[in-house]
Amino acid sequence: MPVTPTTADHFSFGLWTVSWQGKDQFGDATRAPLDPIEAVEKLTELGAWGITFHDDDLVPFGSDVATRDKILKDFRAALARTGMVVPMITTNLFSHPVFKDGGLTSNDRSVRRFALRKVLRNVDLCAELGAETFVMWGGREGSEYDGSKDLHAVFDRYREGVDTVAAYIKDSGYDIKIALEPKPNEPRGDILLPTVGHALAFIATLEHGDIVGVNPETGHEQMAGLNYTHGIAQALWAGKLFHIDLNGQRSIKFDQDLVFGHGDLLSAFFTVDVVENGFPGGGPKYTGPRHFDYKPSRTEGYDGVWASASANMRTYLLLKERALAYRADPEVQEALAASGISELGQSTLAAGETTADLLADTSAFESFDANAAGERSYAFVHLNQLAVEHALGAR
Amino acid sequence: MPVTPTTADHFSFGLWTVSWQGKDQFGDATRAPLDPIEAVEKLTELGAWGITFHDDDLVPFGSDVATRDKILKDFRAALARTGMVVPMITTNLFSHPVFKDGGLTSNDRSVRRFALRKVLRNVDLCAELGAETFVMWGGREGSEYDGSKDLHAVFDRYREGVDTVAAYIKDSGYDIKIALEPKPNEPRGDILLPTVGHALAFIATLEHGDIVGVNPETGHEQMAGLNYTHGIAQALWAGKLFHIDLNGQRSIKFDQDLVFGHGDLLSAFFTVDVVENGFPGGGPKYTGPRHFDYKPSRTEGYDGVWASASANMRTYLLLKERALAYRADPEVQEALAASGISELGQSTLAAGETTADLLADTSAFESFDANAAGERSYAFVHLNQLAVEHALGAR
Amino acid sequence: MPVTPTTADHFSFGLWTVSWQGKDQFGDATRAPLDPIEAVEKLTELGAWGITFHDDDLVPFGSDVATRDKILKDFRAALARTGMVVPMITTNLFSHPVFKDGGLTSNDRSVRRFALRKVLRNVDLCAELGAETFVMWGGREGSEYDGSKDLHAVFDRYREGVDTVAAYIKDSGYDIKIALEPKPNEPRGDILLPTVGHALAFIATLEHGDIVGVNPETGHEQMAGLNYTHGIAQALWAGKLFHIDLNGQRSIKFDQDLVFGHGDLLSAFFTVDVVENGFPGGGPKYTGPRHFDYKPSRTEGYDGVWASASANMRTYLLLKERALAYRADPEVQEALAASGISELGQSTLAAGETTADLLADTSAFESFDANAAGERSYAFVHLNQLAVEHALGAR
Amino acid sequence: MPVTPTTADHFSFGLWTVSWQGKDQFGDATRAPLDPIEAVEKLTELGAWGITFHDDDLVPFGSDVATRDKILKDFRAALARTGMVVPMITTNLFSHPVFKDGGLTSNDRSVRRFALRKVLRNVDLCAELGAETFVMWGGREGSEYDGSKDLHAVFDRYREGVDTVAAYIKDSGYDIKIALEPKPNEPRGDILLPTVGHALAFIATLEHGDIVGVNPETGHEQMAGLNYTHGIAQALWAGKLFHIDLNGQRSIKFDQDLVFGHGDLLSAFFTVDVVENGFPGGGPKYTGPRHFDYKPSRTEGYDGVWASASANMRTYLLLKERALAYRADPEVQEALAASGISELGQSTLAAGETTADLLADTSAFESFDANAAGERSYAFVHLNQLAVEHALGAR
Repeated sequence: MPVTPTTADHFSFGLWTVSWQGKDQFGDATRAPLDPIEAVEKLTELGAWGITFHDDDLVPFGSDVATRDKILKDFRAALARTGMVVPMITTNLFSHPVFKDGGLTSNDRSVRRFALRKVLRNVDLCAELGAETFVMWGGREGSEYDGSKDLHAVFDRYREGVDTVAAYIKDSGYDIKIALEPKPNEPRGDILLPTVGHALAFIATLEHGDIVGVNPETGHEQMAGLNYTHGIAQALWAGKLFHIDLNGQRSIKFDQDLVFGHGDLLSAFFTVDVVENGFPGGGPKYTGPRHFDYKPSRTEGYDGVWASASANMRTYLLLKERALAYRADPEVQEALAASGISELGQSTLAAGETTADLLADTSAFESFDANAAGERSYAFVHLNQLAVEHALGAR
Repeated sequence: MPVTPTTADHFSFGLWTVSWQGKDQFGDATRAPLDPIEAVEKLTELGAWGITFHDDDLVPFGSDVATRDKILKDFRAALARTGMVVPMITTNLFSHPVFKDGGLTSNDRSVRRFALRKVLRNVDLCAELGAETFVMWGGREGSEYDGSKDLHAVFDRYREGVDTVAAYIKDSGYDIKIALEPKPNEPRGDILLPTVGHALAFIATLEHGDIVGVNPETGHEQMAGLNYTHGIAQALWAGKLFHIDLNGQRSIKFDQDLVFGHGDLLSAFFTVDVVENGFPGGGPKYTGPRHFDYKPSRTEGYDGVWASASANMRTYLLLKERALAYRADPEVQEALAASGISELGQSTLAAGETTADLLADTSAFESFDANAAGERSYAFVHLNQLAVEHALGAR
Repeated sequence: MPVTPTTADHFSFGLWTVSWQGKDQFGDATRAPLDPIEAVEKLTELGAWGITFHDDDLVPFGSDVATRDKILKDFRAALARTGMVVPMITTNLFSHPVFKDGGLTSNDRSVRRFALRKVLRNVDLCAELGAETFVMWGGREGSEYDGSKDLHAVFDRYREGVDTVAAYIKDSGYDIKIALEPKPNEPRGDILLPTVGHALAFIATLEHGDIVGVNPETGHEQMAGLNYTHGIAQALWAGKLFHIDLNGQRSIKFDQDLVFGHGDLLSAFFTVDVVENGFPGGGPKYTGPRHFDYKPSRTEGYDGVWASASANMRTYLLLKERALAYRADPEVQEALAASGISELGQSTLAAGETTADLLADTSAFESFDANAAGERSYAFVHLNQLAVEHALGAR
Repeated sequence: MPVTPTTADHFSFGLWTVSWQGKDQFGDATRAPLDPIEAVEKLTELGAWGITFHDDDLVPFGSDVATRDKILKDFRAALARTGMVVPMITTNLFSHPVFKDGGLTSNDRSVRRFALRKVLRNVDLCAELGAETFVMWGGREGSEYDGSKDLHAVFDRYREGVDTVAAYIKDSGYDIKIALEPKPNEPRGDILLPTVGHALAFIATLEHGDIVGVNPETGHEQMAGLNYTHGIAQALWAGKLFHIDLNGQRSIKFDQDLVFGHGDLLSAFFTVDVVENGFPGGGPKYTGPRHFDYKPSRTEGYDGVWASASANMRTYLLLKERALAYRADPEVQEALAASGISELGQSTLAAGETTADLLADTSAFESFDANAAGERSYAFVHLNQLAVEHALGAR
C-alpha cells in the first residue's frame, strides 16, 4: 500500500497548524508569518485535500470590510486553482482580550453578544465556502476559580449560545452541522465541557441538538487521561461524531499538539482501526475528514513545518495499512472470536425474552456456576500482542 | 455553629467504608472484620443518619437463602433499634472473578445474564429496605486493551442492562431512582462512562432515562484532573444529580478514598458551598444524602476507623459553616457583583429579542469597542481570596 | 496575629509576576506593560521586602549598553528609595528563538556559548546588586522527541555549563549561590532535571556543587504529581534548599502559577509548617526569602494584579499563624507522639550497636511478634484531622 | 532477525509476575496459585534466562526454617535442572500488616529493626544464590499525610537502613550491588524517593553509595508523567543504572504493570534503542538483565499468563530489530547530523579554553547574531518521523 497521500484520503489541516509561528507561553515566534495562499498551495502539493481555519487565522481581528473581502477573494481563488476544499471552519473566541473570561459564557453580557455576532458572521462564511462543519471550541469558556462562575447560569448561557447558532443555521437553510470540541483545561484552569462525554451530555439538552455533534481531539481527551478511541466510539454510538481532530500527546500535561502518532502510537493504531475498519460487529462509521490539528514544533524551520505536515499523513496511512492487515489476519479473527468480541453483539436478553423470563431462567442465576465462569480465559493479552505486532509491521 | 453531626445533617456512609480491612493491591488486611451490626451502632453513635451497602458487603457472595435471610433480619433489627436509615444500596459486580471482564458488558453473555439477575435481586432488596437510590458503579465495565471490546456493542449492552433494570423498577412500582457512578480507571485500565459527562450522555440515550441519574464521587472526577464542583453542577443543571459520594483525593493517581477534605480542601469548600447554598442565582439544589465513600487508611486500627468517620462529618460541617459565612459576607456579595457573577444569569439575547434583532444591533458588533471591553477587570482573584480566607476561618 | 506583611517576613516577588501582561499560548496580552519602577514602589507599599528578575525582564534582550546602564541606574535608585532588596536574580534562556533547543544544552554549540556568556554577564549583575542567589531554570533544556538529544552528552554539557558558572562565581570572589529550578515539562515536552530529585542528583556530580542547590517551585513538583513538602524536605536534608518558589497549582496540567494557597491549600499549610516550624525533631531550617513565582490571572486588571500580590502574602501569613497554633496545641503534640513521629528520630540501631549485635538480637526477629506489631494503630487520620481543623482556623 | 528469545538475550522475570493470581484492590484472585518450580520450567521453555523473586514469593512469610530449607532446596534443584539463573532478588517489606507504615522508615522502631533483619537475611540468600543485584523497592516507605512523618528523620532512617545493608554486603565479602527502585505513589499516597532522580540524589548521600544504584521501572516513572528513557539515561550518566524493570503503563494512573510495549510503544522503542545501541556519541551502556516486572491481566487464564510472558520478550526483540535498523539507516545518520545530535558531544568551551577566553571571544556574544542563530531548523520532527517509521517496520 502506498503511503503517499492523495485527495481520496480526505486529509485536512487547520490553517493555524502550519501557520503557527512558534510563539508559546514562554517564548517568542521562531518562524516568519506564512501566507495563507502559500499554505494552500503547499498542502495541496503534499497531498492534502482540505484546509480549515478560524476566522482570525485568515482575516486579522478587526479588519475592515474591504480588507476582509480582498483576503477572502484571494483565498477562494487559491482554492479554485488548487482544488483544495474547506470542509470546516471555526471561530476564534479566545485570542483577543475581550474573550479573556470566555465568549458565549463570559460574565459580561456585552461580550457574549459580541461573541455571538462574531460566530454568526462566521457561520455565513462557512456557508459561503461550502464547509459542512462548523467547529466550536470553547477554550476560554471556563474558570480558574470555582466561585467565579454561577455554575448553573453558565450552562444556560452556553445552551442559549449554541442553540442560537444552530437555529440560525436552520433558519438560513444552511447545510451545516456544528461540532463542539471538548478540552479539559488550558488556557482556562477548568474548561466547561471538558470531555467528549460532557459535550455529548450538553448536546442532549439542546433544542436544536439534532445538528450538533462533537469534534474530539486526540490530545484533549488524553490530557484528562481518557482513552481517545473510547471517546470517539461513544460519540459514534450516539450518532454524534461529526468531525475528528487528530494529533499526538504524551501523557497528562500541557497541550502538546504533536504530529499524529508521535504521541501514544498504539492508541493511534486503534483510532485508525476504528475509523477505517469500523466496529468489529458493524455499526456507524466515521466518514468525515481526517483532520490534523497539530503544531509543528517550535524548533523547526519551514522545512520542518512541511515535513511535519507530511508526517501526519504518512503515519496515518501506515497505521491504516497495518489496521487493514490486522483485521484481515485469520489469526486475529480467531483471537477476536476466542476473546468473545462478537459475543458482545448478542443481546443479553434473547429476542422476545422478557425480564420475567430472565428471572424464571434458573440457569442464569440459581444454577449458574459463577466460579466456573470466572475461570474463563479471555485471552486479551494474546489479542493485544497481535495488534502490537501488526502495528509494528511484524506480521 | 456546632460541628457535632446530627441525623438532620443526613450524613450516610457505605458499610464498606468503615468495614474496609485494609487489603490493598500490595498488602494484606490490617484490621479484623467488622460486624455490620456494630457498624450501624457505632455510626449512629457518631451522628450518622444513614448506611448504604453493596449486596456482598452484608451477605457474602454465594450465601444460601437461609443465611441471607438471617443476616438481613438481624440487620433490619439493628436499623430499627438505632433509627438508622438505608437511603441507597448498590450491587457488587466487581469482586468475584466471574466479573473480571465486567458485569453488564462482559464479553461473556452468561456473565451478563448472571450480573443482571444479581442486580435485579438487589433492586428488590432496595425496595424492601425503603432505599430511594440504587447506585450502579460499573468498575469492571471497561478494558485494558482497545481491541478487547467491540466499542459499539459494548454501549448497546450497557444500555440494554441499565434500561432493563430501570424498566423493572417501574414495572414493579418501586419508588427508586438509579444513579450511575462514573470513574475513569482502576480497576480496569479504562472504565466505560469515565466521567460525569459520559454518564450523563449515556443516560440521555436510555429509554427509561427519566429515573436514571448520576452519583459523582469527588475522587473519581479528580482522578481525571476534572473539577468535581463543575461536574455536580452540570449534573444538577441536567436535573440528574441523584446522589453524591464525598471523599478526598490528592492529584491524579490511584483511587485514594481519603476523608472528605483531606484531599483538595479548597475544592471541598466550593463543593459544600454549592450543595448547601445552591447556585448564586438560584436553580436546582441537591437535597439528597451527604454520603461518604472513603477508606480509613490501612495504618489505622479501629480507633482510627471511627476517628476518620467522624472526620468526614466534622470537616463537612466546618466547611458548611464557612460556606454560609462566605455567602453572607457583604464584601463577598460586593465582589460577586463586581465579578459579574449575577450578570451571567441574564440571557444573552434580551427577552423577545430575535437573532435578526441581534444582527441588527450595531452596538453589539459594528460599533462595539472590543479593546475597551477587553480591559474590564473581572477581579476574580480578589473574590477567590475572600473564599480562601473564609475557608480558613479568617473572616 | 496580624496578616499584614512587613519586610521582616522576607516576602519577595519576581518582577515578571506582577509584570505579566497575560499573553498565553492561546491569547494576546490583556494588560499594558508595567514600569519596573512602579512594580518596586507598589510591592514595597504592599509590604514586600524583595524583588527578583530575569535579565530580560528589566533590560530588553539586545539593548545597547547605554540603554542597559540607564535602566539599571534608575532601577537601583528605586531600590534605594524604597529599601527594597534584590535577593535573587535569574537569566532568561527561554524566550528568544535562539534558545528554542535550550541554552546550556542546545545541540548548537554557538548557542551554548552565547547562553553561557549571557549567564556570566548576569552573574556579574547579581554580584553588583548584592543578590545572594542566582537561580537557573532550564526551561528549554529538554526535548519533545527522545531521539533528538544524545542523552549522555546532554548531561555532560549541562554539567559543563553549571560548573563553569559556579567556578566563575568562586574565581570572582562573589558571595553567590546557584539554585537550580526543576520542572517536569512545558515549554519542552520533557525538561531535563524534571524534579527536585533529579536536580539534587545532578548537583552531586558537579565539581563545584558546594555552591549549587535547588529552588523548588510548588507547582512544578505538583505538575508531576509529587508532594512539594516532601521535595523541600529532601532538599533541606541534603543541605541544598537555597531558595523556594511559592505558588498554586490544581492537579497535573499546564503550569498554572496561581496565588500561593489558591491551589492545594492543605499542602500549602504543611509547606508553611515545615518552613516556619522546621521538622518536629529538629534539623536544618529554611531561612531564605519567601519568594512568590505566580501569575496574576489574565482576567485581571491592575487592581487584580495588586490584589493577587497581596493575596500571596496574606495567605502565607494566615497559614503561618495556623501552623504555629498547630504545633503549640497540646492535643497535636499528643497526637504526634501517639503516631510515633518522634520515634522516627531514634536510630534503628542503638548507639554503638553493630549489625552483628542486631543479628544476635532475637527480639528483633526470631521472637518478634510481627502480627501483634501489625496491629498498632498509627492514628494518622486523627493527626491529619487536627491539621485540617487548624488550617481551617477551627481550633 | 528472529524474535525467538534465547538465554543470550538475558531476559528475566519476577516470580511474582507470572504467579500473580489477579487479586487487586477491588477483586479476588482469578487464577489458582502457581508452583514456583512450574514457573521456572515454563519460563525456561519460553526462552527466559533468569528468574527473580521477593523472599515471600518463594517462602511464605513466617515459614519455619525446615519449610524454608525444603522450598529453597527444591527451587535450586529446578534452577540446576533448567539452567535458569537468579540474577536478582528483593525483599517484601510491603505485604504484611507489620509494614503498613513502612519497613526501614516505619515510625515504629521495632518494625524498622525487624525489617532490617528481614532484609539482611535476604542478602545472605542473595549471595547463596549467586544473584548480583539486590533490589530494594520501598513501596510502603512514605505517607498519606504530610504531618505523619518527621520528614528529616525519615531520610536519616532511610539512609541508616540502606547504609547498614550495604555495609553488611561489603563486610560479608559479597559481590552484590543494591538497586533502589523508585515509585511516586501507590500503595502509599506519596512514596519517598518517588523518581529516579530522588533515588540518585539519596544515593549520593550514602556512606556506602558506591555499591548502591537504581532499578528504574518503566511504569513507575510514567506514573509521574516522566520520560523513562531520560530517567535511565541520567542513571547511566551517573554510573548508577544497576538494573531495569521493563513493563507498560498508559498515562498517569494506578500502576498498570502491562506487558512491555503494551503501554507507550514509541517510548519503549527509544528505551530499547538506548539499551541496545547505547548513546549516539558513546558513553556507558547498560549490560544487565532485561527484566520484566509486569502483571498478566486479571482476565487471563494460564494460557494468557504464558502468552503475556512471551509477549514481553517478543516485543522487546521486535523493537531491538527496529532500533538496530534505525541506527544503521544512512538517512537516519544524516538526520541525526542535521539535527546536531553529535554537536552536543563537543564541549562548549574548546579544549584548553578558559572562562576568561570565552569572555574575550566577541564572536560568542558581542557580535553573535542571535536572530540568525534562532532561525536554524533543528529538523527534529523529520528525525522523529524516521524513528516512528522504523518502529512501525516501514523502512
